[in-house]
Amino acid sequence: MDAEGEPDDVPATGMVRPGGRTARVRDAVLRAAGDALAEHGFGGLDLADVARRAEVGKTTVYRRWSTPAGLVADLLADMAEQSVPRTDLGSLDADLAANARLVLRTLTDPRQGPLFTSVIAAATCDVRTAEALHRFYEVRVREWAGCVDAAVARGELPAGTDACEVVRAVSAPLYYRLLTGGGALDAAAADRAAAAAAAAARAGVYVS
Amino acid sequence: MDAEGEPDDVPATGMVRPGGRTARVRDAVLRAAGDALAEHGFGGLDLADVARRAEVGKTTVYRRWSTPAGLVADLLADMAEQSVPRTDLGSLDADLAANARLVLRTLTDPRQGPLFTSVIAAATCDVRTAEALHRFYEVRVREWAGCVDAAVARGELPAGTDACEVVRAVSAPLYYRLLTGGGALDAAAADRAAAAAAAAARAGVYVS
Repeated sequence: MDAEGEPDDVPATGMVRPGGRTARVRDAVLRAAGDALAEHGFGGLDLADVARRAEVGKTTVYRRWSTPAGLVADLLADMAEQSVPRTDLGSLDADLAANARLVLRTLTDPRQGPLFTSVIAAATCDVRTAEALHRFYEVRVREWAGCVDAAVARGELPAGTDACEVVRAVSAPLYYRLLTGGGALDAAAADRAAAAAAAAARAGVYVS
Repeated sequence: MDAEGEPDDVPATGMVRPGGRTARVRDAVLRAAGDALAEHGFGGLDLADVARRAEVGKTTVYRRWSTPAGLVADLLADMAEQSVPRTDLGSLDADLAANARLVLRTLTDPRQGPLFTSVIAAATCDVRTAEALHRFYEVRVREWAGCVDAAVARGELPAGTDACEVVRAVSAPLYYRLLTGGGALDAAAADRAAAAAAAAARAGVYVS
């Protein structure tokens, strides 16, 4: 456990050996922040509590992340970096179904589900959190857009299909269920979300 | 303006003359609650402030609504009662486009947009608000499901189409944009949401 008031462990150059002390501190703090968010929501996110959970000096946490919003922004950036790559199953239907099942697993995961819910809620009243959330989704949507571009290249979808819009269409019904309570958040819902996006894409709805 | 500490103005029977004093008080309080929510969010919703805005006695507001969550639940019940009826334009495409444009107008309205955003955020950490929000959407979804049932009856859609799922599919991409910041919330997005739901419904995706 770090002593409080230790010297800043982030070199001014930002050049840090991967897996070094700075990376280990960040990993521990972001994991603790995710746990705290999942348990208590954004309103209960407290930097001192996160430092305690991470067994890291409070001063380090305050110096590096400053505010709960700063911490959530870094957590989302890390989640975007760490998140699993898209599939390449050779057909649009299979890839979109895999994407829908991944979104479902995330939203129904006992830790990730409450974490996303609380970050989305926080983003409605905090601009910095909203920007970080938007960047997170942009990274994820762009990653999976490759499946749609590949389907266009294979001739499965019309040329000019907006790949990002198709990917967003897969997620949308699942987030809608999560946030408005309309219908079960289950495998059937995920498969239907994927099938609906694929059918609409084949019909040319997302040609821009 | 009511004096504070006035006798309870809600008869125990719940039988109130429409447009009477009780109804006028409720109208004023719910309007004030909506204004306060749109301005300050759920976290800033204060019963004494609502009473002041509504020019109604504080005791009346506390006695009748008890808590911010109780007030929001009644506001959502009133919004469901007051909300505009569905269209009947004679074709699925026209009706779903009208629904999408209505959802868009609500979410981009300078008062209604922040009001919905703050209630959705509140619902993520308050069970009573979540239940009231779910009931609101259930009422609205059921209202518009009539358009889809009519399209099935006209032979535009396959028999067995889950009408509520089609209506939810129209709203989902617009709420997703509102809450995750993915893409513009504009007329093109609304029309695409309606067209996508219609295309997927025609392809039989919502047959249950």
